[in-house]
Amino acid sequence: MTITLDQARTIVDAALAHGTEAGFKPLTVAVLDPGGALVALARQDGSGFLRPDLATAKASGVLALGMTNRAISARVADDSDFFTTLATLTGGKVVAAPGGVFVHDAGGALLGAVGVTGDASANDEAAALAGIAAAGLVGRTGAED
Amino acid sequence: MTITLDQARTIVDAALAHGTEAGFKPLTVAVLDPGGALVALARQDGSGFLRPDLATAKASGVLALGMTNRAISARVADDSDFFTTLATLTGGKVVAAPGGVFVHDAGGALLGAVGVTGDASANDEAAALAGIAAAGLVGRTGAED
Amino acid sequence: MTITLDQARTIVDAALAHGTEAGFKPLTVAVLDPGGALVALARQDGSGFLRPDLATAKASGVLALGMTNRAISARVADDSDFFTTLATLTGGKVVAAPGGVFVHDAGGALLGAVGVTGDASANDEAAALAGIAAAGLVGRTGAED
Amino acid sequence: MTITLDQARTIVDAALAHGTEAGFKPLTVAVLDPGGALVALARQDGSGFLRPDLATAKASGVLALGMTNRAISARVADDSDFFTTLATLTGGKVVAAPGGVFVHDAGGALLGAVGVTGDASANDEAAALAGIAAAGLVGRTGAED
Repeated sequence: MTITLDQARTIVDAALAHGTEAGFKPLTVAVLDPGGALVALARQDGSGFLRPDLATAKASGVLALGMTNRAISARVADDSDFFTTLATLTGGKVVAAPGGVFVHDAGGALLGAVGVTGDASANDEAAALAGIAAAGLVGRTGAED
Repeated sequence: MTITLDQARTIVDAALAHGTEAGFKPLTVAVLDPGGALVALARQDGSGFLRPDLATAKASGVLALGMTNRAISARVADDSDFFTTLATLTGGKVVAAPGGVFVHDAGGALLGAVGVTGDASANDEAAALAGIAAAGLVGRTGAED
Repeated sequence: MTITLDQARTIVDAALAHGTEAGFKPLTVAVLDPGGALVALARQDGSGFLRPDLATAKASGVLALGMTNRAISARVADDSDFFTTLATLTGGKVVAAPGGVFVHDAGGALLGAVGVTGDASANDEAAALAGIAAAGLVGRTGAED
Repeated sequence: MTITLDQARTIVDAALAHGTEAGFKPLTVAVLDPGGALVALARQDGSGFLRPDLATAKASGVLALGMTNRAISARVADDSDFFTTLATLTGGKVVAAPGGVFVHDAGGALLGAVGVTGDASANDEAAALAGIAAAGLVGRTGAED
């Protein structure tokens, strides 16, 4: 199974709307399929040119390892050399800070992941979760574990 | 000047709608700012996982050189070594085939470029032009030169 | 909008003159457009061969993230893994130390950024600001925030 | 020995002036030291964002091999696989087409190389030679061999 473009666009639109309503800085939102390829991306006016790569990296990293940002962060907390290995293996497409969120359907099947960047990591993650909820899907950040 | 997210989304939606109505294979559409960074991207269900990179490459290449696909194609027609230089300098982000289209405003200012991939190059380009027209902007492919 | 070559050369010349008058070590100055591409660069005699890449990295990093060196430094202060992500995503083109300065016009529009390297970071930044002022433009380092 | 910044700036200014007077498309000019590092670069308004890399590649390639563009072109004429090797070894920083010119002093000592890109290769080379002559130095393209 994989996320559809319709679902991905709903996530992008609702995540950006959440950020705008909450007064966040300009955001970039990326939605990836389970294989780590982009399905949809949008960058708000004023969001820097690395943001598409960074939003993609947040979503790609959790999919690549099958670990939430929090699990990655815990794993590398006392072993930053391992993070360096992950970063160099992936060309930087892994982030330990929050903002990369798994997307599951109601039955628990993995559909992909969402990455958001632009404001504080907690706000980025909140925007991602708002987008996923708007699509009637289930987000997993590791905070609920 | 640079393309706005609102303009970019209109282009993406209209380009995909054009492809669907025309019975094209699944398309991926990327809209880049003049510096070559993504503003919006959408990949239709069934479009392969390299398509986001390929759509981005089509748009990035024309912006990088300030040359249309047709001008790039003419330049490398008798000098494939030069294309090898371009491909390696950019990590493959340059395409000679049609499907990367400059976007200008009514006054002629460059706002960015659109890249479309998934069907025959001529159809990819037609979808890009349909998207740009729907945003009330002006596309430039080199065919009109 | 983007910085012009005439503006960029004025910045380069005045930044280098500032360094020479102040007795700084040999400097390298890079001026980038908002998309992160070079517009003008000059390396003083005796400045090492990595300096062009380093000056470019200082300017590119702030543009890529839309954050000043000081904001980047604060963001990564307690999260060096995030800096590793940024460095690997960009091929090293991001610097947390001062010396990458945003360039705005009198109306506040972003025109690009200047990167200076060769002496202490504070001196590099002072040279960049002197260059920007000589062009009648406005520099932003984060120190004024 | 190596080219000085003063010499490099004279070359850049005169090469760009030549292009403007001759009605060439916008040019980018790069001046490199014998080690292949940038000393000065300028990109005229409207020159695409890959042009700094391409101008640098033209100059770097001749220095890297100690061969003129014409010698490189003759060497790879019937062996494009060898050009592919050169391109991949250097990350694309080698060009077989004219526009990378060695710079020598009156005594024949190698000081560096100039790369020009933006118009037809013959015009790019003419601009480079005009710049080198304006600095009272000697250009070598291979055409005089």
